[in-house]
Amino acid sequence: MTLVECVPNFSEGRRMWVVDEVVAAVEAVEGVALLDRQSDATHNRSVLTFVGKDDAVGEAAFRSVEAAVRFIDLNHHEGAHPRMGAADVPFVPLKADDMAACIALAHATGARIARELGVPVYFYEEAARREERRNLADVREGQFEGIREAIGADPGRAPDEGAPQVHPTAGAVAVGARVPLIAYNINLDSPDLDLAKRIATAVRERDGGLPKVKAIGLALDDAVQVSMNLTDYRTTSLAAAYDAVAALARDAGVAVRASEVVGLLPQEALVGLARATLRATGFTLAQVLEARVLDTLL
Amino acid sequence: MTLVECVPNFSEGRRMWVVDEVVAAVEAVEGVALLDRQSDATHNRSVLTFVGKDDAVGEAAFRSVEAAVRFIDLNHHEGAHPRMGAADVPFVPLKADDMAACIALAHATGARIARELGVPVYFYEEAARREERRNLADVREGQFEGIREAIGADPGRAPDEGAPQVHPTAGAVAVGARVPLIAYNINLDSPDLDLAKRIATAVRERDGGLPKVKAIGLALDDAVQVSMNLTDYRTTSLAAAYDAVAALARDAGVAVRASEVVGLLPQEALVGLARATLRATGFTLAQVLEARVLDTLL
Repeated sequence: MTLVECVPNFSEGRRMWVVDEVVAAVEAVEGVALLDRQSDATHNRSVLTFVGKDDAVGEAAFRSVEAAVRFIDLNHHEGAHPRMGAADVPFVPLKADDMAACIALAHATGARIARELGVPVYFYEEAARREERRNLADVREGQFEGIREAIGADPGRAPDEGAPQVHPTAGAVAVGARVPLIAYNINLDSPDLDLAKRIATAVRERDGGLPKVKAIGLALDDAVQVSMNLTDYRTTSLAAAYDAVAALARDAGVAVRASEVVGLLPQEALVGLARATLRATGFTLAQVLEARVLDTLL
Repeated sequence: MTLVECVPNFSEGRRMWVVDEVVAAVEAVEGVALLDRQSDATHNRSVLTFVGKDDAVGEAAFRSVEAAVRFIDLNHHEGAHPRMGAADVPFVPLKADDMAACIALAHATGARIARELGVPVYFYEEAARREERRNLADVREGQFEGIREAIGADPGRAPDEGAPQVHPTAGAVAVGARVPLIAYNINLDSPDLDLAKRIATAVRERDGGLPKVKAIGLALDDAVQVSMNLTDYRTTSLAAAYDAVAALARDAGVAVRASEVVGLLPQEALVGLARATLRATGFTLAQVLEARVLDTLL
């Protein structure tokens, strides 16, 4: 059973009745669990989080985009966040082995959006069909207004699905597949912000640190924090990130006070934690009672 | 949502058609996931593992006992394992906070077994109504033949539900509630069986070690093992058991080679592991994506 998360962003964060319509479209699909909805008026964006079996999640994603296309007009949209269309739709496998299924789901859903809604689609991240489209920011370059001009004029900007012209109101939609991101912070028992920044620099991939780790140093009220995004927990796990930060802090004579997972993570990340911290190399997701229940009942 | 595991034992491990009938009774209940079935001809016992919402699991447990009562005759049962009736039925909460709900489920199911099937019921472990009935072995003292005599004659052996006489063929049934047990082994990089035995003695509750831990030392082909049962992972966690054994081994100059979880464990035990090993004191089950999906969809 392939369990998939979808975290679509919609270019509407002010007219709550529109967001309600999009949410209702998701909730109408049986077997889909809506876990979160958040709207931001400044960005004029909303993000939903829902999870279910791959086919149900694909259906809910399509219907949510359908509702967004019906009600969102990029000609009258402004906000702090870059946008090129009514929605960006990433599919996220809860088990890393299911990435191929998520990519297939992204491609099928994208083709359907182009065909049934007349909105051109770009595939990004793991679902990208062109290497230069992996990064959503690159795909979105120029935003709605710029892509409206470039999509038909520049072959490099032609969509992956649909005709090379934006939908007059809904623009273009990005559909992707990616590993779940884990937001993970470690608080150090010290007021030394420079230390937190040095450790962040040492552990982040950009500066030669751990692969698939982003990090910054932050000051809290009574401590400092190494704030990380683990963009692929199978490459650099919670345990590996913790151990690296704790070792660097220890070298400076500083202890870890606590750590915090921000938001949600997949069960598989905890199984990896057990493998690492208990040297339980044979431990698998199939030994978690709740994983078995989901597999059997969904 | 209260997710409950039931691990009933039935006094039949040879006539597989009878076990099939019991299994079919469980599988007929919607919303119940049968995770495992095992039969042992020497013990002449079978054990099922199924999980679901509390009401569905209670229904499945009742129906499985109904099937067992129909087909099992203790007058013609022999096997290596002690038995007093057709079944023993423990309910196990997947979240420790749900123990009260499991005890209530045990009491309701036991009352129904006595009322509808005419089989007297004893409550044990957390569901015990008399302190001396917590231990199933004490309840079962004398087995079917002894209890048949004692149940009406000795007020101390009167059942908790039903008339003080055994069912003529199905005997008496035990219904209980207990914390999930985690079978957990740690292999040491050493051939020294005495070391494994010394560590087992040091960590087990019986000899003054860790609470809710049973342990023995065993020889493997190329290593030795501290083999444990953690009978309440919220009292002594996987991390605490690992740390205690690893520290004692280290004192003897021996490293942990690997550890293994045998069988299934609840998600909550992994959440506890994250709290301990990452000092992630605020981390909760509600942050595990799959836990949220189960809560929403079941």
